[in-house]
Amino acid sequence: MTKRVPVVEKLLSANDRLAQENRARLDEAGVFAVNLMASPGAGKTSLIEQTLPRLTERLRVAVVDGDIATSIDADRAAQAGAVASVQINTGGECHLDAVMLHQALGQLDLGQIDLLLVENVGNLVCPATFALGTHKSVLIASVPEGDDKPYKYPGMYRGVDALVINKIDLLPYIPFDMDYFRRGVEALNPGLVTFPLSCKTGEGLDAWIEWLLHNLTPTTRPPDH
Amino acid sequence: MTKRVPVVEKLLSANDRLAQENRARLDEAGVFAVNLMASPGAGKTSLIEQTLPRLTERLRVAVVDGDIATSIDADRAAQAGAVASVQINTGGECHLDAVMLHQALGQLDLGQIDLLLVENVGNLVCPATFALGTHKSVLIASVPEGDDKPYKYPGMYRGVDALVINKIDLLPYIPFDMDYFRRGVEALNPGLVTFPLSCKTGEGLDAWIEWLLHNLTPTTRPPDH
Repeated sequence: MTKRVPVVEKLLSANDRLAQENRARLDEAGVFAVNLMASPGAGKTSLIEQTLPRLTERLRVAVVDGDIATSIDADRAAQAGAVASVQINTGGECHLDAVMLHQALGQLDLGQIDLLLVENVGNLVCPATFALGTHKSVLIASVPEGDDKPYKYPGMYRGVDALVINKIDLLPYIPFDMDYFRRGVEALNPGLVTFPLSCKTGEGLDAWIEWLLHNLTPTTRPPDH
Repeated sequence: MTKRVPVVEKLLSANDRLAQENRARLDEAGVFAVNLMASPGAGKTSLIEQTLPRLTERLRVAVVDGDIATSIDADRAAQAGAVASVQINTGGECHLDAVMLHQALGQLDLGQIDLLLVENVGNLVCPATFALGTHKSVLIASVPEGDDKPYKYPGMYRGVDALVINKIDLLPYIPFDMDYFRRGVEALNPGLVTFPLSCKTGEGLDAWIEWLLHNLTPTTRPPDH
């Protein structure tokens, strides 16, 4: 979704054109950007809260938070150690789009940022169809949502570069067939890298942090990686 | 949202006009219809599965299921005792609308139905703005989603007639401040009736069933209520 090769013959939509502009701006500034998408309550903000303290000694991380209302998430990101956090209140909109990210980028000093985490609006449908210009798209599923979600929301599972499976600490209390879930994911997005983890206990977070670090663009990758 | 009084001066949108048609059709047939909305995985289908066996001795219940893809939910409703179940696959659409319900009603023998449960697409944003023509709108929240959802998704909490709080069996394992959650709900929808319950353990389901029975229109209310 976010990896587009410009083809002269193709008429890009206005959103996609602006997403490309966003990407160029990020690349020029050496900022690696990740679009985090999930259902409401799957743990996007919790993952950001757990990710920041594990990176802030090596990287300058900023957060853009999209929500229908409130600045709860941007406040949590700032408290967790983001060098900057921008809240986008979408009003009624059910997703972020390239225009919104464009506006948010204008409020950030990109030269002072290595990694930008973009927290999309909580929604398993709409964000899938709006490219932002970020380098990677990550879906956060969570155990209490149930193991049938890949089957019921294929668009979202198809378009992402990595899948976090959050709240694995709740597996003993919830009927969740991990094999059934994984088969659904594999059918939609073969070979998709997954990170089963718990933002509550910290289990599994190391692998996720490693993935982030290894995916940084050469200009932003820290010397020891 | 679904309780509209026709005013000549007001230009109703195409969706609202068709929602009124749906309502008239339901009323004429004596069918009481409920629009069930929630995040993905909050437990809409589980609530339907728990509700049906508690009603099917007294009422003929049908289910309309909206999903991006698959007929998993309609199949589960049929297994749970629905006299009829219709699956609407919306393709990419993030909500049901009056047109889709209109089509579903055409596939049902309304004279053979007392109660129609409409399971909307899993989404905390989009369904709020599309009236279907149902008599009541019910939101299903769930404990693992977190206690901040009323603050972040106000549109959905504002427009409903009842709120189910599902998965209370998980309260011991999840940080969820019920007072904070309830304050958010009360600010948006004062006096909203709530049903804390667990579809897993059955706790709290009786009150929800009572509410459904007492809200049936006079033509469909069973004699002993």
